[in-house]
Amino acid sequence: MSSPLVLTLTCADQTGITARVTAFLFERGCNILDAQQFRDSTSDRFFMRVAFDPLGTNADELRGSFAKLGAEYAMEWKIVALDRARRVIIMVSKGDHCLVDLLYRLRVGELNIEPVAIVSNHPREVAIRTDIGDIPFHHVPVTKETKPQAEARVREIAAETEAELVVLARYMQIFSDEQSAHFAGRCINIHHSFLPGFKGARPYHQAHERGVKIIGATAHFVTADLDEGPIIHQDVERITHSDSPADLVRKGRDIERRVLAEAVRLFAGERVLMNGNRTVVFRG
Amino acid sequence: MSSPLVLTLTCADQTGITARVTAFLFERGCNILDAQQFRDSTSDRFFMRVAFDPLGTNADELRGSFAKLGAEYAMEWKIVALDRARRVIIMVSKGDHCLVDLLYRLRVGELNIEPVAIVSNHPREVAIRTDIGDIPFHHVPVTKETKPQAEARVREIAAETEAELVVLARYMQIFSDEQSAHFAGRCINIHHSFLPGFKGARPYHQAHERGVKIIGATAHFVTADLDEGPIIHQDVERITHSDSPADLVRKGRDIERRVLAEAVRLFAGERVLMNGNRTVVFRG
Amino acid sequence: MSSPLVLTLTCADQTGITARVTAFLFERGCNILDAQQFRDSTSDRFFMRVAFDPLGTNADELRGSFAKLGAEYAMEWKIVALDRARRVIIMVSKGDHCLVDLLYRLRVGELNIEPVAIVSNHPREVAIRTDIGDIPFHHVPVTKETKPQAEARVREIAAETEAELVVLARYMQIFSDEQSAHFAGRCINIHHSFLPGFKGARPYHQAHERGVKIIGATAHFVTADLDEGPIIHQDVERITHSDSPADLVRKGRDIERRVLAEAVRLFAGERVLMNGNRTVVFRG
Amino acid sequence: MSSPLVLTLTCADQTGITARVTAFLFERGCNILDAQQFRDSTSDRFFMRVAFDPLGTNADELRGSFAKLGAEYAMEWKIVALDRARRVIIMVSKGDHCLVDLLYRLRVGELNIEPVAIVSNHPREVAIRTDIGDIPFHHVPVTKETKPQAEARVREIAAETEAELVVLARYMQIFSDEQSAHFAGRCINIHHSFLPGFKGARPYHQAHERGVKIIGATAHFVTADLDEGPIIHQDVERITHSDSPADLVRKGRDIERRVLAEAVRLFAGERVLMNGNRTVVFRG
Repeated sequence: MSSPLVLTLTCADQTGITARVTAFLFERGCNILDAQQFRDSTSDRFFMRVAFDPLGTNADELRGSFAKLGAEYAMEWKIVALDRARRVIIMVSKGDHCLVDLLYRLRVGELNIEPVAIVSNHPREVAIRTDIGDIPFHHVPVTKETKPQAEARVREIAAETEAELVVLARYMQIFSDEQSAHFAGRCINIHHSFLPGFKGARPYHQAHERGVKIIGATAHFVTADLDEGPIIHQDVERITHSDSPADLVRKGRDIERRVLAEAVRLFAGERVLMNGNRTVVFRG
Repeated sequence: MSSPLVLTLTCADQTGITARVTAFLFERGCNILDAQQFRDSTSDRFFMRVAFDPLGTNADELRGSFAKLGAEYAMEWKIVALDRARRVIIMVSKGDHCLVDLLYRLRVGELNIEPVAIVSNHPREVAIRTDIGDIPFHHVPVTKETKPQAEARVREIAAETEAELVVLARYMQIFSDEQSAHFAGRCINIHHSFLPGFKGARPYHQAHERGVKIIGATAHFVTADLDEGPIIHQDVERITHSDSPADLVRKGRDIERRVLAEAVRLFAGERVLMNGNRTVVFRG
Repeated sequence: MSSPLVLTLTCADQTGITARVTAFLFERGCNILDAQQFRDSTSDRFFMRVAFDPLGTNADELRGSFAKLGAEYAMEWKIVALDRARRVIIMVSKGDHCLVDLLYRLRVGELNIEPVAIVSNHPREVAIRTDIGDIPFHHVPVTKETKPQAEARVREIAAETEAELVVLARYMQIFSDEQSAHFAGRCINIHHSFLPGFKGARPYHQAHERGVKIIGATAHFVTADLDEGPIIHQDVERITHSDSPADLVRKGRDIERRVLAEAVRLFAGERVLMNGNRTVVFRG
Repeated sequence: MSSPLVLTLTCADQTGITARVTAFLFERGCNILDAQQFRDSTSDRFFMRVAFDPLGTNADELRGSFAKLGAEYAMEWKIVALDRARRVIIMVSKGDHCLVDLLYRLRVGELNIEPVAIVSNHPREVAIRTDIGDIPFHHVPVTKETKPQAEARVREIAAETEAELVVLARYMQIFSDEQSAHFAGRCINIHHSFLPGFKGARPYHQAHERGVKIIGATAHFVTADLDEGPIIHQDVERITHSDSPADLVRKGRDIERRVLAEAVRLFAGERVLMNGNRTVVFRG
């Protein structure tokens, strides 16, 4: 078996797409390993993900010949290697529980990523109390005045490292609209609350104040409205009247890290497709 | 064993309450079956629920002698029979899934309630397609103009039937502030959504539009703000991009009925105490 | 749009199946609505479900022409109407909570089934306390001596009613191996416990005795070993030390009915394919 | 406020225990912070946990005077400091995901423990790939022949370090009956499966083979039968037909670590009381 490739595509729904795409691969001797599709009857859009063994066919060649089919259906599409680790920048502030978790999962082989930089608005000794090995650390302080420069610096790091994904692992600075637009579709945030419930500051305290019986966390793509981007994954946990705000923070930490890690895993497997302000998540 | 009684109380937190209350029962020969307490360090309030076997001691006598202790600590308190079925009015509109569920659970002995009336703003043949046995049905139509009279009629029915609880089992009319105040602490609503996420109309469609990955339902006491009363119980279920609004409605129905039934069960067991805009729920 | 059809198939995994199947439909002018596939790398089997709009093409004609492709790949396959209600026999003993639930879901349009018979080993007044409308009720008593005749009678009813599915909705008699074999792949049982944990009698009491913190229920196809057939769906709920066996039974009832209903819904949508002693469940 | 103390007790159920215990504390000027009790109607045992502020009263003095009451009711009881970190030995084999998780939670203040030793049957470089700071590491190899000596060495380490709890954080050696007896009630194991489902080796592979739709993990006290001790905590996660055994192992790791951590947290808070082969868990 050659290294598997994955084709993802979206286009307006039309008859015959699946047949045409699978025939394309079949004719070139590729063996489909997994195929999933979805028609959104609301938006009349079609979404597809096909993982396949190219059996020696060259990826570039495939891209070249698929372009015609892609154009015919006005698809957004890409064909990429499935096993190649995605180059990722991890951004943190003071709490490192999501970072620790991502690095642990990377180590045991759960995440197909390669961290090319860790960026924090705090100095390393403040931001991180875990062993980050030889991952380059960048301290990029942010003040109201220096925000434009700081964001430019992050874009620069992303360009230099050829990062494919920026993970906001409890990074507590809000991206400017411009920065959000720049990283659109390739920046995942973990919102430390069950959206759309409690936006803004200290959501666990809001939740406690409101007396809810379930709390959660939400991983989503960053858009101009920081807490409103397309949702990738969510999870929840029960709480009771006897849980203090501190208990909620503790339970929330656990939800946050597993929700963020799952979102990154799905992204790295090319399993998340954007559908307007929503996502299509092919779990396989 | 005599028929068990249950004492519930709340007051400002002070030293010795538990000792005084349990000593009171002990001295009168009562045997504690279950006792739970909670101190809310935020509000500095104390909450307690004690189920006990009075071993022959008269309930009225107990109430008489407990009054002194209650006054000393400025408690809100009550002592009631635990096993007596709570008299309940169930209000419905067109969807009867919660009603059907409540009646089924009543039949198999899950709910310690006695439905004394079913009230609907629709005629019986529209509102209900299930067998309600000999529970009196009241059609109380509501229009913008007749709302005050309609609400007065409901209060009248509640008075006549000596109802202890009004259950809004997907009753789609909004109570006036006055009506909410009248039934404060004895009216439970099921909100067909995971609060505080999607208030207002068609929450499942909102949830679909927003692309959330988890939906839920919330049972809460009715207050002037219909969707904001103290939460009693919540539950959730996962959804995916392939769930249509109709799927969400279907899944939601299931969550709604079990969340509402659990809230009613907890209320009937004197397990829900009000704590400002929150609840203390002693699950036992 | 014509009435949609659904094609399900399984065969040994080979290159090009998806392409051949989707091309087959495309060439006949059929429009794919939803397609899902799965390769089991353990057993090297391929599974596929395609829902499609035949756009006027005749179902019988499609079956006729698909037969060649089916033979070429040695598929087990079928093409059936998606919207036609599945003819179902519901078997019950004394507890009717699953029956009540199924009938309710049928009424509100959640289940695409048509109950053609209700069979019980108890007389109607013992077995059922709900309104079953005009569904024929059959009392088929079972004793050790009459079991063969009783089972023959059930097979007879199934033949007469052309039943496609037998649902054991808390039917407490164990099928003989012969009966299990007769209904293989078209008989769903709800096991009132989280398999493979507590087999045999009174599983909730076993669970309480063992002090587990989570209980559940399992819907599975019936095979010779009543509790060991391919699992279709499961669900669980948390319990605590303070839950009595009676509480477990109460909570279990709720899990049972929703797990069984979901299994029936999946079956009726041609979403459950057999994979040896396991199932492939295409949730869509 | 003085440093809080916690009293836990169990005895045969009798009238007046709660009253006597709370009166005892009240008379000595102690202020109850949290009290929970449970009567097991199956075994007729009574269980209680009271956290209290001694307001300056000496713990030793309290123990001295409580002894009389304890004797009167034939209680098993203890009064200990609530905030003191429990001295813990963590035992690991090759997988360190539970160890990493425990150490992380310790660092961020979630766990009130002090690791006094890490013990592995493998050398440090094999067993651990995380930073264990200055926690002493002991390599105690185990072969069939040396097992008695190895177990004696562990007991020795426990004695030297005055360990209060032994945590088997994916320690893959089975304790002898003698070792299990020695550490009875103070050794917690994480069983990498949802008990009582899949005992023995490679439970996730068994679960995959069996086609279950939910997997889980179980934290329990170690007894002679390694997988059958009193259960402290469990959790589960859904799986589908498309999850490979490797996916199950990945998902299982996540469940295991959070279930074990929660069990340790509960133990360290004196929230777990033994009730024969079950536990009473006061979650507070």
